[in-house]
Formats: sequence, structure tokens, C-alpha cells
Amino acid sequence: MTHRNPAPTVDIIIELSDRLERPIILIERKNTPFGWAIPGGFIDYGESAETAAIREAKEEVSLDVELVEQFQVYSEPNRDPRQHTLAIVFIAKATGQPQAADDAKNIGIFHSGEIPTSLCFDHDRIMKDYWRYRHYGIRPHY
Amino acid sequence: MTHRNPAPTVDIIIELSDRLERPIILIERKNTPFGWAIPGGFIDYGESAETAAIREAKEEVSLDVELVEQFQVYSEPNRDPRQHTLAIVFIAKATGQPQAADDAKNIGIFHSGEIPTSLCFDHDRIMKDYWRYRHYGIRPHY
Repeated sequence: MTHRNPAPTVDIIIELSDRLERPIILIERKNTPFGWAIPGGFIDYGESAETAAIREAKEEVSLDVELVEQFQVYSEPNRDPRQHTLAIVFIAKATGQPQAADDAKNIGIFHSGEIPTSLCFDHDRIMKDYWRYRHYGIRPHY
Repeated sequence: MTHRNPAPTVDIIIELSDRLERPIILIERKNTPFGWAIPGGFIDYGESAETAAIREAKEEVSLDVELVEQFQVYSEPNRDPRQHTLAIVFIAKATGQPQAADDAKNIGIFHSGEIPTSLCFDHDRIMKDYWRYRHYGIRPHY
């Protein structure tokens, strides 16, 4: 089939459930675009989004995550400067000490209000949506 | 980029909001696999999932829909017998008289409890998840 589509990816917002106030993990990217971002990557052919999310979390931050829920899909054509990708964003939880690997040069653990600004891609928007959902229970809506 | 990914699609559960008890629309497919299904189709490169959902609804059932929310993503590798696709399922509303067009040979308007069984793809599961959400407010979860 020659139909050209956006490339589907997953991003995983990982809450560290064994720490006070469940901080989340961001990665500092090893490759362009450089900067801080939510961990994630491409879904492989033959792999569900859920399997991809668990695999990517393990590859980038070295943790076995438990998926909590699908949060939201972000698919605006200009969200990634390299090509059109769509991101299925999951909320997950994990315990223990994350370690940067694969595409991640460094990892950071952040509480609400401490998140760096100017994240890569549309991750500022995703973070804003996530904290609103976590604090007030309000999902992104139209 | 030569990375091979599942092909992203949208499905749109359209509630007819000007009718008693908001029945939904299914289509009878013109192409294989034959049978009843939720309207939907492939997301084009350069198009958001939301734009694709509004376009596909217009093409298949001839209605201008208003998106209500993203419902859930279904991405099991075996959900479509032809190739690995993932479906971003939307809930939308519309008014007026739907008419079959494009990939739809026929349309049907169904209330809860009247939905045909043995829908194409994994649409039986999606319908089950949808009615549980609509009746009880419970989203699919892990």
C-alpha cells in the first residue's frame, strides 16, 4: 500500500509512585532536536501502542512501567520539525531509580511547577494538559 | 525514513443528537472485509487526526460532524486482516439525515441494544467499550 500517513509514536508520562507527590521523568535528548522531552518513540509494525510504550520506557529510562491509562493523541502536522508524527500519550507508573539510555543523554525527575519550559515538539502543551488533568480531572477537549 | 509503522486511521462514533436517545451510525462496507463497521479511514500525511475524522465522516455518511472527544486508541496487530492499522476512535455528534457514500454501501442508525454483532475488525469490542462508557462513564482501562 503506497498511502502515505503520519508516523505513529508513543510518549509515556512516567509517575514515580514510590516518591512523595509522584514526580515525573523527562529526558534530555541525545539527538536533534536537542532539549528536554517526554520519553517515547516510534511504534513498530506488528506492535501495539501499549507494547511500544512499555518497550520505549525501558529503553530510554531503564524502568519497567505499568500503564495506567491512555491520555490523549496529539497529531498536528507541525508538531515535529522532521516529519509528520502523531503521538499517543500514555500515563504510566514505575518505582525505582531511572537511568538514561538509548536516545536519552540524561534524565530528570520533576515535580509539578518544576517542569522545564521550551520542551521539544509540542511537549509544553502535553505537559500543560497533563497537569490540568492530574490536578483537576479535566481532560483535553474541543 | 524507512522505519515501518502501523498505518494510523480514525473511526468516528457519530451520535445523532437531534433524535431521541441519540442513536449512532454504522456503515455497511462496500469493500472487503464486507459487513457492518464504524465509519472511518486512513489519516493523510499532513492532516491531524481531528481533521481526518471530520473528513471521513463527511465522505462516508455525508454529515458535518462536531467532535465531542477522543475516546480510545485500538492498535492490536491482528485487528485488521489486511495490514497492521491503529485506530484513533472519536465520539462525535451530528444532526440530519446521513447518506451512504464513498466506501459505504449502506448506512444504518442503531440504538443501544440494536447494534449488529460480528462487526468488521475489532469494532465489536469498540462498541462494547463505547456503550459501557456512555452508560456508566467507565473508560477502557488496563
